[in-house]
Amino acid sequence: MPVNLIAPNPADLLPVPGVELGVAMAGVRKANRRDLVVLTLAEGSAVAGVFTKNRFCAAPVQVCREHLAQGSAVRALLINTGNANAGTGADGLARARRSCEALAAQLGVKPQQVLPFSTGVIMETLPVERIEAGLPAVLAARQAAGWADAAQGIMTTDTLPKAASRQVQIGGRTVTLTGISKGAGMIRPNMATMLGFVATDAVIAPALLQPLVSEAADLSFNRITIDGDTSTNDCFMLIATRQAGHAEIGSLDAPEAKILRDALVSLAQQLAQAIVRDGEGATKFITVRIDGGRNEDECRRAAYAIAHSPLVKTAFYASDPNLGRILAAVGYAGIDDLDQGLIDLYLDDVHVARQGGRHPDYREEDGQRVMKQSEIGVRVDLHRGAASATVWTCDFSHDYVSINADYRS
Amino acid sequence: MPVNLIAPNPADLLPVPGVELGVAMAGVRKANRRDLVVLTLAEGSAVAGVFTKNRFCAAPVQVCREHLAQGSAVRALLINTGNANAGTGADGLARARRSCEALAAQLGVKPQQVLPFSTGVIMETLPVERIEAGLPAVLAARQAAGWADAAQGIMTTDTLPKAASRQVQIGGRTVTLTGISKGAGMIRPNMATMLGFVATDAVIAPALLQPLVSEAADLSFNRITIDGDTSTNDCFMLIATRQAGHAEIGSLDAPEAKILRDALVSLAQQLAQAIVRDGEGATKFITVRIDGGRNEDECRRAAYAIAHSPLVKTAFYASDPNLGRILAAVGYAGIDDLDQGLIDLYLDDVHVARQGGRHPDYREEDGQRVMKQSEIGVRVDLHRGAASATVWTCDFSHDYVSINADYRS
Repeated sequence: MPVNLIAPNPADLLPVPGVELGVAMAGVRKANRRDLVVLTLAEGSAVAGVFTKNRFCAAPVQVCREHLAQGSAVRALLINTGNANAGTGADGLARARRSCEALAAQLGVKPQQVLPFSTGVIMETLPVERIEAGLPAVLAARQAAGWADAAQGIMTTDTLPKAASRQVQIGGRTVTLTGISKGAGMIRPNMATMLGFVATDAVIAPALLQPLVSEAADLSFNRITIDGDTSTNDCFMLIATRQAGHAEIGSLDAPEAKILRDALVSLAQQLAQAIVRDGEGATKFITVRIDGGRNEDECRRAAYAIAHSPLVKTAFYASDPNLGRILAAVGYAGIDDLDQGLIDLYLDDVHVARQGGRHPDYREEDGQRVMKQSEIGVRVDLHRGAASATVWTCDFSHDYVSINADYRS
Repeated sequence: MPVNLIAPNPADLLPVPGVELGVAMAGVRKANRRDLVVLTLAEGSAVAGVFTKNRFCAAPVQVCREHLAQGSAVRALLINTGNANAGTGADGLARARRSCEALAAQLGVKPQQVLPFSTGVIMETLPVERIEAGLPAVLAARQAAGWADAAQGIMTTDTLPKAASRQVQIGGRTVTLTGISKGAGMIRPNMATMLGFVATDAVIAPALLQPLVSEAADLSFNRITIDGDTSTNDCFMLIATRQAGHAEIGSLDAPEAKILRDALVSLAQQLAQAIVRDGEGATKFITVRIDGGRNEDECRRAAYAIAHSPLVKTAFYASDPNLGRILAAVGYAGIDDLDQGLIDLYLDDVHVARQGGRHPDYREEDGQRVMKQSEIGVRVDLHRGAASATVWTCDFSHDYVSINADYRS
């Protein structure tokens, strides 16, 4: 029951010149399921990405990092669902490498020009031979208009595909950005990954891609939480095919860079929020904003303390304005010198607490009214500085437990 | 449905010379409910305690700290349920002080010789006049054998009272320790506190009580987690009436101190584990032990990452040996230079993962067998040092959501 989310209209997903996408059924874990996706990139493309900080990161994440560090031009991305190839030791690394070698051979490029991505059950052996066997079909299926199929092909526990496009004008040319993502957190037992891929034909110096993708991730995928579990396989990749025909953007300070950056952040936020809206068992979409912090870090910590608290999240599920739980979460966020006597709490426009205590004009029915909405804004003002931070999350329902307690099937 | 926990037999709860306990119904939040408890202490008693680190700590916690800091001899502890007096600002502080003044007047002592404790709903005004009105009854009810009643009187969402005793021989005398506790975490909407009180008649230098209670808390109440929410009101207090008649223990290095310390730690662990066994919705009791860390801090972080993960906890609830989730939790515990290739994972005696990957001899039915037990041991060896740490937790069930999503009633 996704919260105010609908499947994208395939016609709204704009091809990105230089990118082709193919999808096939390889039977990685189950038969008759689209579980293999390939993106091939035209010569001259550049790629950068951010990866999970989990030290138990999956074999494909390790191989991605290696291949990007080697600096060869990336020509293909290979994505499988059904198996995360995580917790698989040296054998898992060998299998991830073998999948790159197989695709590279078919494309006539070097293995380090392929980036592998896996999502699915942890600690089981990747059936790389099935992936190899599926490559001819997936390559044959490639098309520039393949974004909608690819969004569906990377789904695991998602109930809806997640994809969107943007177009901006840069140097008199139309520049396209199109992206897809899949669910994070609140994951079925056998699935545990957030994946995001955005491609653009903007002509941008390859060295600028990494700061751009890092900033966009920081303002989008790094601002969502469902259950606080950090996956072994999370990746967010930015591809620039550089075919739009305008003069190259050579500095992030250029006005053209700002146009591109704003479109990228907006697209990444839409894709990230779509993951929360489709969180397992989610019935409400909650925006948590902290104002008045000394720095952004402490604002984020306070926002995450609220967004991770099972007590807060079950209260949202129940539409119960038990708002002391929010204050308590701020209190244990690790801000050592926090003065509770300064804190204000708002639920949308309702002023709930002032100077650390219940606001004299607060009426429970006003809190109740906001809690019943499907989109809720929580705002806390710490009144100790000028920094702010926002995090998006969902509530915590019976269905979350049901979905995650189901035996893997 | 507490996990292997039964109500204590009142006959097993040994009086501590110098302590009397009274319980009464004061109607703090609901009528006909034991919600007021007083412990009075003989002259010559000493008290020390540890308190929540939550910056949004309740008014009574602030008053307790003030009174202990002033160094007056504590003669009474005043505990109410039904209202936490947290998130109540300056007015809450005034009401907590007024409750101490009222009890002090009845006992003929100074207000700073009374320590107040509250547990219940946050952000509502403490009805201090009802507490005042209940004092004569609670004082009249005092008796040395009042421990069982007191254990019941501090209950909120607990399904069973929690209490235990120990006796040890020190300097040819029998020394008694008796304690009570109430539930932490997985708290009903209107309740949110762990409280623990242990009294002993051991003759110990008052200055040694603080290090002793801190160490005991660190090995017991600070090793449990249910949902990761840190309450605004948590307290663990150690009372020494010093009436046992043996020579005073003047150093923690003395052999007599070790006898007392071991009994205290054992008692505190039993009281702390009882809270987990009675965790809201708990169906399993899980001991998480990390070995082979460089230091205890990183072991604790890894243990808590496992014990807090909703994905891990729902898998335990489902008896699903989806053990990659445990490895993933270790991976995001914040140990920056963790080498996943060294890690071993055991479920009781079953060797699940070796060198970061699935053990070749591991069979899912062996994992399944352990997961079905009501008491489960998880052990992770990081193989990077000699430090260890243990944490106790419970699983995460449908009932947790039901209990916490119920509208406050």
